[in-house]
Amino acid sequence: MARCPTHRVLDRLGDKWVSLLLKELGEGPKRHSDLAHALAGASQKMLTQTLRGLERDGFVSRFVTPSVPVRVDYALTPLGERLLPVIHAMTLWAERHIEEIDAAQQAYDLLENSAP
Amino acid sequence: MARCPTHRVLDRLGDKWVSLLLKELGEGPKRHSDLAHALAGASQKMLTQTLRGLERDGFVSRFVTPSVPVRVDYALTPLGERLLPVIHAMTLWAERHIEEIDAAQQAYDLLENSAP
Repeated sequence: MARCPTHRVLDRLGDKWVSLLLKELGEGPKRHSDLAHALAGASQKMLTQTLRGLERDGFVSRFVTPSVPVRVDYALTPLGERLLPVIHAMTLWAERHIEEIDAAQQAYDLLENSAP
Repeated sequence: MARCPTHRVLDRLGDKWVSLLLKELGEGPKRHSDLAHALAGASQKMLTQTLRGLERDGFVSRFVTPSVPVRVDYALTPLGERLLPVIHAMTLWAERHIEEIDAAQQAYDLLENSAP
């Protein structure tokens, strides 16, 4: 069950920074410093860990230019590119329906708290 | 950031049992006992918690028939129905690409472990 393909993919996308990073890189290759700037809320450690995970999954490629200082660029792989439309569909759905979800949660909590 | 609509929705769908339950209910309303049977790997507590969460989000309705013993049925709400196509698209994508992800992970681990 834990190895179910859908769950494994959804679990990755549910990660706080994964879908944001993929969307950033959907605009084109970026330097590590650009990504750090775009994901200002993420710690340096979290950003590096998330990028490594995406690299390991085969969604992102890393290019190291041995200059001084070392320059590191990231880009989507073809697999990462193919994931983008699914992320965009999910993003659109979430944005369109989040108010409805919020309203449902508020109604539920109100009912729970007023129960005898 | 944590309140970003996309992240909140993806986070829910990444939950081990959420997408499975929604897919089960996509076939039509089901009794609590049928869902327990379909999700045989989930504990009773986990199943109940997940169903409550889905009810709170407005994806699932619960119908209680005051018989002896009490009969409890669950069904997708219209909002839950509208989420199904997105889940199906994600499932299809995951099933089609999981081998590619597995291969990427194996290649990455091999390279990491062989690094000097």
